[in-house]
Formats: sequence, C-alpha cells, structure tokens
Amino acid sequence: MHDLAIRGGTAVLGGAVVRCDIGVTGGRIAALGERVDGATEIDAGGLLVLPGGVDTHCHIEEPFPEGGFQEETWESASRSAFAGGTTTVVAHTPQFKGGGLAEQHQAARARAARGMLDHGFHQIIADPSDAALAEIPALVADGVGSLKAFLTYDALHLDDEAFLRVLRAARRHGLMVHVHCENFAAINLATQDLLAAGCTAPKYHAASRPPVVEREATARAIALAELVGQPLHVFHVSCAEVAEEIARAQARGLPVKGETCPQYFTLTAGDMDRPGFEGAKFMCSPAPRTAADHEGVWAMLRRGVLDVVTSDHCGFSYEGGRGKAKNGRGASFDAIPNGIPGLAARLPLVFSEGVSKGRIDLPGFARLVAENPARIANLYPRKGVIAVGSDADLVLWDAEREVTITNALMQHAIDYTPYEGMAVTGWPALTIRRGEVVMRDGVVSATPGSGQWLPRAPRPV
Amino acid sequence: MHDLAIRGGTAVLGGAVVRCDIGVTGGRIAALGERVDGATEIDAGGLLVLPGGVDTHCHIEEPFPEGGFQEETWESASRSAFAGGTTTVVAHTPQFKGGGLAEQHQAARARAARGMLDHGFHQIIADPSDAALAEIPALVADGVGSLKAFLTYDALHLDDEAFLRVLRAARRHGLMVHVHCENFAAINLATQDLLAAGCTAPKYHAASRPPVVEREATARAIALAELVGQPLHVFHVSCAEVAEEIARAQARGLPVKGETCPQYFTLTAGDMDRPGFEGAKFMCSPAPRTAADHEGVWAMLRRGVLDVVTSDHCGFSYEGGRGKAKNGRGASFDAIPNGIPGLAARLPLVFSEGVSKGRIDLPGFARLVAENPARIANLYPRKGVIAVGSDADLVLWDAEREVTITNALMQHAIDYTPYEGMAVTGWPALTIRRGEVVMRDGVVSATPGSGQWLPRAPRPV
Amino acid sequence: MHDLAIRGGTAVLGGAVVRCDIGVTGGRIAALGERVDGATEIDAGGLLVLPGGVDTHCHIEEPFPEGGFQEETWESASRSAFAGGTTTVVAHTPQFKGGGLAEQHQAARARAARGMLDHGFHQIIADPSDAALAEIPALVADGVGSLKAFLTYDALHLDDEAFLRVLRAARRHGLMVHVHCENFAAINLATQDLLAAGCTAPKYHAASRPPVVEREATARAIALAELVGQPLHVFHVSCAEVAEEIARAQARGLPVKGETCPQYFTLTAGDMDRPGFEGAKFMCSPAPRTAADHEGVWAMLRRGVLDVVTSDHCGFSYEGGRGKAKNGRGASFDAIPNGIPGLAARLPLVFSEGVSKGRIDLPGFARLVAENPARIANLYPRKGVIAVGSDADLVLWDAEREVTITNALMQHAIDYTPYEGMAVTGWPALTIRRGEVVMRDGVVSATPGSGQWLPRAPRPV
Amino acid sequence: MHDLAIRGGTAVLGGAVVRCDIGVTGGRIAALGERVDGATEIDAGGLLVLPGGVDTHCHIEEPFPEGGFQEETWESASRSAFAGGTTTVVAHTPQFKGGGLAEQHQAARARAARGMLDHGFHQIIADPSDAALAEIPALVADGVGSLKAFLTYDALHLDDEAFLRVLRAARRHGLMVHVHCENFAAINLATQDLLAAGCTAPKYHAASRPPVVEREATARAIALAELVGQPLHVFHVSCAEVAEEIARAQARGLPVKGETCPQYFTLTAGDMDRPGFEGAKFMCSPAPRTAADHEGVWAMLRRGVLDVVTSDHCGFSYEGGRGKAKNGRGASFDAIPNGIPGLAARLPLVFSEGVSKGRIDLPGFARLVAENPARIANLYPRKGVIAVGSDADLVLWDAEREVTITNALMQHAIDYTPYEGMAVTGWPALTIRRGEVVMRDGVVSATPGSGQWLPRAPRPV
Repeated sequence: MHDLAIRGGTAVLGGAVVRCDIGVTGGRIAALGERVDGATEIDAGGLLVLPGGVDTHCHIEEPFPEGGFQEETWESASRSAFAGGTTTVVAHTPQFKGGGLAEQHQAARARAARGMLDHGFHQIIADPSDAALAEIPALVADGVGSLKAFLTYDALHLDDEAFLRVLRAARRHGLMVHVHCENFAAINLATQDLLAAGCTAPKYHAASRPPVVEREATARAIALAELVGQPLHVFHVSCAEVAEEIARAQARGLPVKGETCPQYFTLTAGDMDRPGFEGAKFMCSPAPRTAADHEGVWAMLRRGVLDVVTSDHCGFSYEGGRGKAKNGRGASFDAIPNGIPGLAARLPLVFSEGVSKGRIDLPGFARLVAENPARIANLYPRKGVIAVGSDADLVLWDAEREVTITNALMQHAIDYTPYEGMAVTGWPALTIRRGEVVMRDGVVSATPGSGQWLPRAPRPV
Repeated sequence: MHDLAIRGGTAVLGGAVVRCDIGVTGGRIAALGERVDGATEIDAGGLLVLPGGVDTHCHIEEPFPEGGFQEETWESASRSAFAGGTTTVVAHTPQFKGGGLAEQHQAARARAARGMLDHGFHQIIADPSDAALAEIPALVADGVGSLKAFLTYDALHLDDEAFLRVLRAARRHGLMVHVHCENFAAINLATQDLLAAGCTAPKYHAASRPPVVEREATARAIALAELVGQPLHVFHVSCAEVAEEIARAQARGLPVKGETCPQYFTLTAGDMDRPGFEGAKFMCSPAPRTAADHEGVWAMLRRGVLDVVTSDHCGFSYEGGRGKAKNGRGASFDAIPNGIPGLAARLPLVFSEGVSKGRIDLPGFARLVAENPARIANLYPRKGVIAVGSDADLVLWDAEREVTITNALMQHAIDYTPYEGMAVTGWPALTIRRGEVVMRDGVVSATPGSGQWLPRAPRPV
Repeated sequence: MHDLAIRGGTAVLGGAVVRCDIGVTGGRIAALGERVDGATEIDAGGLLVLPGGVDTHCHIEEPFPEGGFQEETWESASRSAFAGGTTTVVAHTPQFKGGGLAEQHQAARARAARGMLDHGFHQIIADPSDAALAEIPALVADGVGSLKAFLTYDALHLDDEAFLRVLRAARRHGLMVHVHCENFAAINLATQDLLAAGCTAPKYHAASRPPVVEREATARAIALAELVGQPLHVFHVSCAEVAEEIARAQARGLPVKGETCPQYFTLTAGDMDRPGFEGAKFMCSPAPRTAADHEGVWAMLRRGVLDVVTSDHCGFSYEGGRGKAKNGRGASFDAIPNGIPGLAARLPLVFSEGVSKGRIDLPGFARLVAENPARIANLYPRKGVIAVGSDADLVLWDAEREVTITNALMQHAIDYTPYEGMAVTGWPALTIRRGEVVMRDGVVSATPGSGQWLPRAPRPV
Repeated sequence: MHDLAIRGGTAVLGGAVVRCDIGVTGGRIAALGERVDGATEIDAGGLLVLPGGVDTHCHIEEPFPEGGFQEETWESASRSAFAGGTTTVVAHTPQFKGGGLAEQHQAARARAARGMLDHGFHQIIADPSDAALAEIPALVADGVGSLKAFLTYDALHLDDEAFLRVLRAARRHGLMVHVHCENFAAINLATQDLLAAGCTAPKYHAASRPPVVEREATARAIALAELVGQPLHVFHVSCAEVAEEIARAQARGLPVKGETCPQYFTLTAGDMDRPGFEGAKFMCSPAPRTAADHEGVWAMLRRGVLDVVTSDHCGFSYEGGRGKAKNGRGASFDAIPNGIPGLAARLPLVFSEGVSKGRIDLPGFARLVAENPARIANLYPRKGVIAVGSDADLVLWDAEREVTITNALMQHAIDYTPYEGMAVTGWPALTIRRGEVVMRDGVVSATPGSGQWLPRAPRPV
C-alpha cells in the first residue's frame, strides 16, 4: 500500500506512452504497474500523466545592483509554476561587478527557501576575478552545478578573456556553462545609431540586435568552449540561422547543446510595434524574430539541434513595480526593462503549438520541457522523468482542454502576460510535487517554504 | 504476487538507469517498483536489466530460387539469438522474379512458427508487378508492416521504375520501406573488369563496390522516396560518407533513417585479404571499409543520423552447407555466397565497442539494439523497452564479464563466426522471452514452436 | 597594315576592360594596341568589343528517327546566331538506338557545312553498344571532342550501365561528357498519373518533372563520373537546388561543371499555363521553375558553380513545321515537341539581365557566353577570347540600346520566340566572324557554306 | 616603332597563354601582336612572359613604437622584390595607439619614395578614435584605398567595438578592409599557461595559437562585416578549416575574400621545433600548420575560396638587427619578433609548388600572384595584367630552371630565409618595371627613388 496512487492515467514514461498506475511512497515514485494501490488515490482517467515540468532558465526575485529585487518572489513564482505544471526550476544567482559569490549565493538560497518550488541555481559570473573564481569550490560543495555567462548587457557582459576564464573555471570544477549569446559592441553601436536617428520606440529593440549579432556570438562562444574543451549550453536560441551554428558544432562531435523558449515560436518582432507602449510587453533578448522563423525553430527542435524549451521567465510589470511602461514610457527602448514572464505559459504553449498541432509527439513534449532540462542541469533521473526512484513530480494533463490565456491564469506577480488572448489546446489539471498535490484545477495549495534545494553534482573532472 | 519477479537489478528504463525490481504476469511486465514480489524470483544483483534485443534485419531459413533453404533454421537462429540476448527478430520473406507473395508469406510464417523467437517479416519485393502489388493488402491484413527493396543483386535488384512502384505501394498501405543501397550496374561493370584482369580473390569483393557506389544509391533512394512522400529506412550503412546523405535528408526534414551493423565498426576490407580463402568469411555487402571508417560510424551513431544496429545475419557456412569455401574455393569472388552470421554477437559487440569503450552510454545501447529497432518495425512499446504493459523480454547483462568470442558461443548453424577470437567486455547472463527464461549461462531452453508471430499495424494512410 | 582594324572601341580582354584597337590579318587577331591600322577600318567608338558568342548547346537540323529534320537549318541557324552576336556553336550529332555513329557524323558535318557558323559536334550516345563505341576513335580523329548522354527521353535515355559505358569510353579517349540529368522512370510514372487524372494541358509538363527529379539524376551522374574518374559537364541546370549538387562535387575537388540557359532566369512554369495552347511555346526540359529560382540561378553563376550560359536552342515552330500547336493542340502535354529556340536571344538576355541589371560585370558576361563555353569545348583560346592569335570573332555591342524582342529580330526558322515582348538593354551592333563582317545593324551577309568545322583535340589520356 | 619590344615569348594574357610580342611605349604596354618592333628588343624565346608580381601584403621599413625601423628598407625590399619577379607592393602605414594617421602616412610615403618599387599603403588602424577617423578623408584623397585591422597583438588589436568602427569608416569612404584574424584573449591566456608550465621554446608559438583561434576570429570578422555591409579581405589564411568560414560567407553571397602565403603550404609547425633557436626563423602568425594542411590550402586556392597569395614579408634578422635569436635566445617564444621574409621567394614557391607540381595552371599562377592582388588593391588593370594600356610590368620566367633557394638569392636585408635549401623549378630571368629592365639574371639595376606612388580610388559609396 503506497501513500498515494495515481490510477488509470496514460503515462509518458520516456519514449513509451502507456496505461499505467503510479505508486508514490515517501515523496518518490515507488511503483509503476498495471494496478497500484494507495492510501490516497487520484483518478487520472482520461488524462495524461507527465513528469512535472523542469524550467532551467528562470529569473526569480533577483536583487538589482542599485538595490531592491525583481517583483516575482519565490512564492509567487512557485504559484505560477505549479499553475502551469512546472515543479522544478533552476534560477540565477547574481554576481555584481567587483562583488563576490558566496554571500549572494546564501542570500539567494534563503529567498528561494521561502518558496514552494524545488530549485537549483546557475551562478552568474559577471566578473571572473581571481577572488570570485576562488569562491567556486565552496559553491560546488553546496551543490551549484553550473555557471551562467552573458556576452552582452552593460552590467553583465564578459569579454573574450573573461569568458575564457569562466570556461576554464567550469572545466576545472566539472560545471556546465550556460551562455547568453549576443554581440555587445554591435548592439551598443546600433543602439547609438538608432537613438541618434530618433528611433526610440520599443520596436527598435529588434533593430538593434538582428540575428547576425546572435549568430556571431554563438559561433564565438562555441569556438572558445571548443578551445577550452568545455561543454556548453546556448540559452534562448531565437531562430534557425543561429541554431545552425550549434548543428555544425554537434556534427563536429562537440558537446554543445541549445535551448529555445516559447517566445521564439509564438511572438514576433512585429509585436513590439503594437500601438503606444504596448510593444514593451514583448521586449526580451534575443528579440523575437518573424513568423517564418517559428517553423525554423520547430525544425531545429525536431532535429534535436535544440532540445530544451524553457521560459526565460524574467518579469517586469507593465504598470506596476519597476514597470516597463511606468519607467519606459516616453523613454527610449534601451531604457525599458528587458524580459518577459512565462513560467506558467510554458507547458501549455509547447503542448499546444507542438503536440496539438502535430509538430511533435507526447514523448517529445516530455523531453523538451522536463527530461532534457533535468539532464542539462544534472538533475536526471531524480527530476524530469517518471521512473522508479524518481521524485514524484507529476502533472496530470488534459490534452483536450481549450483555454484562452489570461494574466489571471498565470498566477504570477507580474501585471500582464505577453501571451494574453492566445488560444491553447491542452492544460494542466493537477500538479504533484514530491507526492503532494500542489495544484488542482488552478488552485495552488502548497505551503510557502516547502520547496527544496537541489544540490547538483559536478561532472567528473 | 506476480508470476515472476526480477529482483535487485539495475534496469535501463528508456533514458533512466535505476535500481528497480520488475514484476511479470502473463508474460508481460506488470510492475516496476522498489520492491516487487513474484512466485518465482530471479536475483539480478550486480547485473544490468535490459530490454531483450530486437534485430530487425535478419535472413533466416530463406528459400533459394533454385530450391533448398539457408542452413540457419528458425530453431538454430532462435538458439543463437537467445544466446546473444536477442528475443525478437524481423526477417525476410522472399519474392522470386515472376512469383507471388502470399504463398511465400504463408510458407515463411510456417517455418518461423517452428522457432522460439517472436518474429515479423519484411516482404521483399523483387518484382513489383501489378499482380504482386495486388497481394499486399492481404499481407498487411496479416500483419506485415514493411517492404524490402534491393537496389543491387542479379535476382533482386529493382530499377528506378520498380523501386518507385514499391515506394508508391508502401505509401498507399502505410508500410515502411527498407532498402539495400548499392548501384547495381556499377558493381557489375567493376566485377567484369576485375575478373577480366584476373582479380578473383575474395578481397576484390571490396574493390568491386567502393563507398561511392553505396553513396550514390543511398542518395537516389532518398530522392525517390522524397518524390513519393514515403518514409525510408536505409539498411546497413557502412561509413560516414554514406551516412552523410541521410544526415542531409534529415536536415531537410525528411523521414529518413539509417541502420548500421557490427561488421562496419569491427571488420575491415583487409579481413577479406586473409590467407587462402579465409577472406570469404568476411564477405558481405556493403563491404566492410577501413579502420578509420569505424570511428566515422560511431560518430554517426552518436549524432543519431544512424540510430539502429542490427546484425544483417545471413549465414553461409565456410565448409559445410552451401559453404563459402566449399563452393567458392578456386572460384572467383563473385561466386562466393555473400553474407555473414551475427545474431548472437550483435549485443556483445555493440556493448563492448560502445559502452565498455566509452563511446555511448547504457540508455544509448538499449536504444540502438532494442528500442529503435522496435520503433522502426512499429513494435514499440510492445517490444524494445522495459515498460508496464510491454512484453517481458529481458536480458540480464553482466557488464564486467570478459569473453573471447568463439563459434561455439554463437550457437548458430553456421560453422564459423567472423568475430572468432575477438575479446569483448559485457555478456548476457540470462535471457527472458515473454516472462520465460530461455537462456541461462549460455544454456538455451526454449521449446521449438514457442515463438510468436508479431502482427504489425500500418501507419495511417 | 592589317586587313582590318577595329578602332576606338572598349574591348573586353579576359578580365580587363580597356580602350584598345584590334588588328585582324588572315582572319585572326594579329594585334591589340593603342593604335592599330587596317586596310579596312571599323569605328567602334562608343561600343564594347566582345569575343563572338560561343554556344555549346544547340540542336540544329537534326534528323528525326522517323525521318525528316528539325526545321532550323544550318543556314537559318547561322543567320540567327550572327543576329544575336554568336559566331561559334557546338551542336549535336544523333545516334539512333541500334544505329551507328560514323554515317550520322558525316551527314551532320555535310549539313553543317552548308551554314555560315564555325562549328563542332557533341556525339550523342543513345546506345553504347560495342559496335558504336568502336566507332569513337575515328570520330576523335576527325575532331569530335565530346559525348552527350541523356538520362531521360524514351528514345535517348541511358540506364546506369549504359551511362557508365559512355563515361568509360570518354575517359579512354579524353572526351568531355555532357549530360542531361532528369530521372526517366520518375517522369514516366508521374506522366502516367497526370494523364490518368486528365491533366493533359501544357502546364502539367512542369508537374511531371519537379526539381527533385533533376537533382537526383544530377547527383547520380556526378557519382558515376566520380567512380569512373571522368570529368562531367551538367547541361541546363534549372535551379539552385540542383546546382548545389555540383557545388558539393566541386568542394570535393571533382572536375564537374555546370551550365544554365536564359530560360531558367527569364521564364517560369507559370508561362506554360498561358491561355489555350500558348503554354506549349515555353515547354522545354528541365522545365522552367519559379521567379524565386531566377535569383538562385544568378547566385550560382556569381559563385562560379555554374559558369556557362548556352541557349539549348531546339526549335519547333508553334504553327508551322512539326509545330507544337499543330501537332499538340488537343493532345496531351507529353505529345508536344519539347524545346525552345534561343540562339539569337542568348547574348541580349544574359547582358540585359546580368550586366544591365548589375548582377555581373562585363568580363563576367564574356566568360559566361564566350570564354567558358569555348573552354569546356576545348576551343579556347582559338575561340571565346580576344587575344593575339585567336580567330577574329568579335561582336560590337551597344550597351545602351533598348530593344523589345520580337520573333523577326531572332531571324530563325521558327515561327515564334518564347521571349516575345521582353525588353532588353544592350544589343549587338555588328558581328565579325574570322575577320569578316557577317552582321551589321541586323543585316546578315555571310555566304552559305562559309562556316568552318572546328576539330577539337581530346584531353591527354 | 615602340620604345621596347619583348619578342618571341609565350605570354600569359589573362586566361590565354599565347605566343605574342609585346610593345612598350612610355612605360606602358602599347601593343600586343604577332610581330612588334621596338627601339630596344628583348628576346624572350623559350621564356614565359608574365605580369610583374603584385604583393599586397608587405611590411617594409615600418617604424617601431619605441623608435627605430624594421631593417628591411624600401631600397633593399625593392631589390629583393625585383630579384623575385615582383614589381608592385602594398605595404603598411602604422598608427600607434593614441596617435594620428597623416604624419605617419607622409613619413611612410617619404621612406617608400627612396625605393624602386611602385607602391601603395594599407593604413593600419590601431586606435579608431574620432580624431583618427577624421583623418581618413585626407588619406583617401591622397590615394590610400584600404584599412588594415589586427584582431590580435598587444599594440595593435581591436576589440569588437573598435573593429566595427573601422568597418563603418571603411564603408563610409569606399575602402577595403584587410584583417588579421586571431583571437587576442585566447592567445594571451594560452601563452600565460605555456610560460607558467615552462614551455618557452619557439615551438610553443604554434601551441599558443591553434587553428580554432584563427577560425573563431575569421568567423567573427566576417559576421561583423556582414552586419555593417562592408567588403572584407582576410589576410594569411593558414588552413582549410579557416578558409571554410570564408567559403560559407561566399556561398551566402557576401563580398568576402581571402589570401594565403607560401609559408602555409611549405612550412609546418614542426619547423619551429628545429634544434636550438633555429625554430625562431619560422615563427610567424598565424603559425604554419601541418603538412596535411598544405593540400587543404591548395584545394581552397583551386576552389577560388582563397584567390591571392602574398608574402606577408616581415623581416627580422636571426642574428643581426633586432634579431630573433639575438633578442630571443634564452628568452621565451612570446618575446621573439614575429614574422618572416618572403618577398623574393613568393613567385618561385607558388610557381614550383603550384605549376611545376601540376596543382594549378599558368593563368592560375598569374591570377594568384599578380591579377587578383591587383584587383583587391583596386590597381587592376593598371597593374597585375598584360593588357594594352597597362603599366609595362613584366617578368620573363624560365619555367624549367631548377634552383636551390639560398639567402643570397633573396637579396633582402634579412640575414636568413626560412626557405633556405628548398629546391624549386621555375625562376625569374628578367624583371621589367614600367618598361625598364630592373633585374636581369639576378642583377638588380634600378635607381633608388624610381618607385612610384600608386594612388588608389575608393569604391563608389
């Protein structure tokens, strides 16, 4: 007799989609079987049973250099994630230029501990000083498994030498490197030109960073990782032209992988040209491209060149908080906070655009949103899969349910969603985190502080 | 209480490698769990538990146009397969030029029914006459799921028109097309030249069919399948140069896949140059290439361009039967029967060269020898995976065991193995077919006639 | 004092465009200089002086198997060529299935001798019997430098074995092989399908032979030539997708080159859908593709993947002769004679679309229509270039003249031109063949019978 | 009657190799003809007549930031160039960080005016400050046609922003940009590692800058030029892996071209491992690669991906001057002056390795060493070709002469040649600059100060 049995569902077990009951004991999957009993039983008849979503690219309650925090707290983020079928996230710990790592790491862990999501952190390295790099072993000992490098943004970007230092440190300690690839100088010069020409509206954000800017930085990051002999994960690839650089690396046998995000197959640069300052709601980097690029992204997902879809959840309200419009209205595009929320919308968008529209199959869906993110974060098979011994993170999914996305459904702290009004087919009915029902029919019920820190082991070095 | 429980092993469940018990009831996997009980229990401690091997490319007891049968019977083949950890095969039903399909199919099923292997058939189409094509619906109704086309060999080869007819028939009925790609005319002319120059030894087999001959036919088969809109599976790809044609097709989004065989990463053309007629033992088509090509094949397997490894088991004894040397000694290379046995050696060779040498991981091994063959044959998830509801076809694998391959270990009817003397690390300890132990420590114990016909559903058309 | 001096023009001398006089003595270019005197002087002020056009892909006065000849005679073709600035052609000698070569060759030479064009022949091999191949040395001795192979058309197509025989014969004798690449069987089956579906109009010609059919045959021809070690020239490449196969071969270092024709950057498949039977006027093989493909063809010309533009002049009148409409009206597309006239239009179309529209420069123009055709035919530097010692074949070109193409301007025997009504910028003002003015302001004045046979040396073997 | 006639030679006129006399009047080619008379006549019987070599990548008598000049003076360089058949060079004008352009330009012109070579300058931009960029129009007015950017070297390297400024300035003024592509930071870190590990010998120069370092910078330079819309010329491409980046750009239709140098098909990294400090003699950047890479470079030259061969002449004596051994012996590889002399050896090495060994033909040779360099420098057709109106820069070439290279034959100021002892077939017999014999049988006779400044026009902007 298990603590909990999910009965009668159609489970996605790796590549197999089978009718099977699931027994949960002690928060872990203890049994898969034709018939499994539990003290509590959940009827999953007519529903899919999927591994809980794993979102390895989130920005939650990060502090700003100038003080204050992103308005999405770990509690609100947990609520939003559960509402959307995601049970695990890997978020970011900042490093400020000149600053250290350990203190930020402890503070970030403390903030995350107030939430309900199981979680890990990418340590951002914005300043790979000897002092900062010397702090890495302690982070590794505490379970940080990855570094994040930005090749653009004033406060974050690494030049080649700094990026090489990050790659070398990662190699030494067995860490993954995730990288935001856009050419810093090219964007800066283009931005200066645009502003000088009076082009300040949100839509010029896209003009300031065309695909070649992303492609160049991607090729460079790959070459430098190849030189160092370090695996690399390219974040938020926006189009096939960029993904092709990853495909070339893979064909050469290099350990390079790439992710994309729903914004790159649902939004376009044209969305930033909506009337007034509405365009600001769709502003993220890399910029959304064209509708034609959406098919290119799907093709790269089907080829496996890109094999992870995350949200890059990074919320700024439109009116409230450090609101995009509040601060940016009347200002130029380069002053508008950059990033969009997507934690809750991720699974529905990938399912609807992918499975419901026939572009991918069910096992492919589970791989993109759960298994492969868990693998890249070295959390597999604890997370990301329905297997004996894995954490009982599950989402019961209604494949037929038709929903129109509204901001209320997102349950995040942000006052808008860029996906407002989009129709999707497929929606999470119930979310289970370590054997506990944390969302049922949209009602989130987890206890703040119940999220667990997920220590991640380094690769052997 | 299950009929049988496999206890304490480390199971490969799709992508996950986990400690887990397996419960079998009624020949199917009824439970996976931390603790599963059974009326009979097998201790798998220290062993891997893998899905039984699926070999989708075998020639067993096929009749010759001139009368008689290949010496490997379904009984001997079953014995050999079980000895090597394989529990399912897809073999070939012949069509003779001018002849029909149904009678051959029924006869082939009758022969196979005397064996112990679960089995399906590819229907060879050597003569796509209207009459022959009209017999296909009945075959489909009986569970034949695929057609096999040869682009070379006197008795079998299809010209472009005939091959197009096969592709169109397959499309109409939702069948897979498997294809042997070598250019018939090029081989014939080269053979004539070699014979005219007195080059008759076995080694000239390789010279008569260089990689470009295989590459051309592969590109052509893909283009014609693209024209028709029919999925294609390229058999026994011998080297990266050929696989690159498949990679190009996949990059264009075409449903084209490829397999390779152990001979293409363990043997070389040089083996056909062994003293006397020994070279005949290594003669198969396409011909083994160079040692350098072995790494190319592995690279293509890692990229997923090739995703299936089969044996192309096709046995002719060296001295006995229609023996290679018996008939060929003193004769020219083109008169020597073509093909090598490999049913039993397949899993050990892929494991040893792949997993033990660090080229692939355990889930990758299971995919190459079981899951992906089952998928291409539309037998998944009944076969090829350890999942609830699947047939309980399992192999308990000793990953550390070091074995030197001998012909006796192969347990086939053929009087030699091309892998004689090769050292491998990793060997099957016990094979289970539908819940029945059919091999333990090399002793095969299944009852002739216990093999089942596996009807395969067509794709929707 | 030279026989003739062309004074004051701007000459295209290989890559250099320079002001320079040209002195002609004995029909050859004897001097290039800042000032050259002649017994006769022609004022080329304001004009370009270009090498006379060389058209290495023409069908002129060829006999039909069923008797009779193509209506374009050598005299009318000469008139048309001179009108358009072309002074040299390589045409085709037929072989009928079962027939020999020598007799056809002598007859073809006799017909050509009645014209005014300097000329050579490609020997078509439709039936590479031992007897036919045994005739090749005599042809080579008489100056035939190339063989032509068709991979499609009922009366002409070679299967792989036959094509390999042609390649091997060419290699043995140092001949070039030109090849028409389309898959015979694929076209036949598609045609049967279309006719069975009642799709008989001219436009279905394009549907019966899509680009993949041309691409497959191109890849195959290249692979077989690679196997044999024989240079190859791919005729009338219709689009970039096909040219890419040639680019791949060139990147591998193979001696493979390709030509295209004006129809592939001026006409589209849509032209075959004009009202009534007008579409028949645009029917040639490969079929014209889409407007988007035009830019692809230009890109391949700029990259040098394709480096020759010929006319594939192959005339059938619309109403007269074996007229397309006369015979084809009311009949199905497969019964309409195939081929379009283009001898006179070639240079103006390439110049206007290429130079006048800024896609290529003047030396590029001369290379595409004169130098490179002369090279592939092994006539360079006797033909195709303005150099000391070369034949004085020159065209004085008015780069600014705007002309609307009409059939009368074409001066051929055919009763229509597919380019009727097209506006071009750039037109030949005067044509000189071996020092003799043969066209001035559209008036052709050469004496029938004045054309010379151009013996072509084989490559060293 | 011309001032000078070169009689009876075999001239390379663009693509044509023809017997032809050449008449020179007023230092320019006034006539090409079957028979040309001159006041002076030179018998070129048995010799090739080629355009004088154009070397667009030379460092001559450049000042050092710390004072002093490279020991190769314009007079000694002229002597060496004429000895080797080169008549035109484009050298470099330095900019020191923080410094201006005009003064350096005038000083460089003054130094060059003391030599005998016709010459132009690339303006190095090491510091694209607003002040420096503001000086460009004056340079353009004086005939500077190109900018040179270094992506590595402490004193010279441009980061992305600086390089983008250079590209934008070039675009604004119609200038070519030549670029040295190696990743600065990667080399620095690798050098630090090597030195820290005690790896200080010359051979570690190669280890500090492997091909990936060059490939990355090449891809980046191309992407940034693509972003700006500026043509680009990649200097000294060392291997096919790097050239492939240029090939990809060309396939996309970008105006990107590349050069290589003889060191990349004659020397290897192994040469830097010669006993003692001898290895320093072969030290240049990028570093010579492997013998296998030599064929790759030739393949890229044959494909036209690379189409210029220059010397990158940059001389430092071994013992004398700022000698490599004198200063470097006992010091680490990074302290050894970098660069090798090659002005005189260039044509013999390209001819011998290219033409004599059958890798390229005669017109190809003339294109690589004269025509294409003249084109990229916008000096064509004044330089780089034998055409009416061009400067009478000619080299009479003995294609059969076998010579063993010695430093004395080089006639430069440097005390060694890296090609010492190499055997070549083909050697210049006589060099003519603007109609004046400046070298006959190795004896240089030109008057110091006779070299001319070659103003180069910008492209239209």
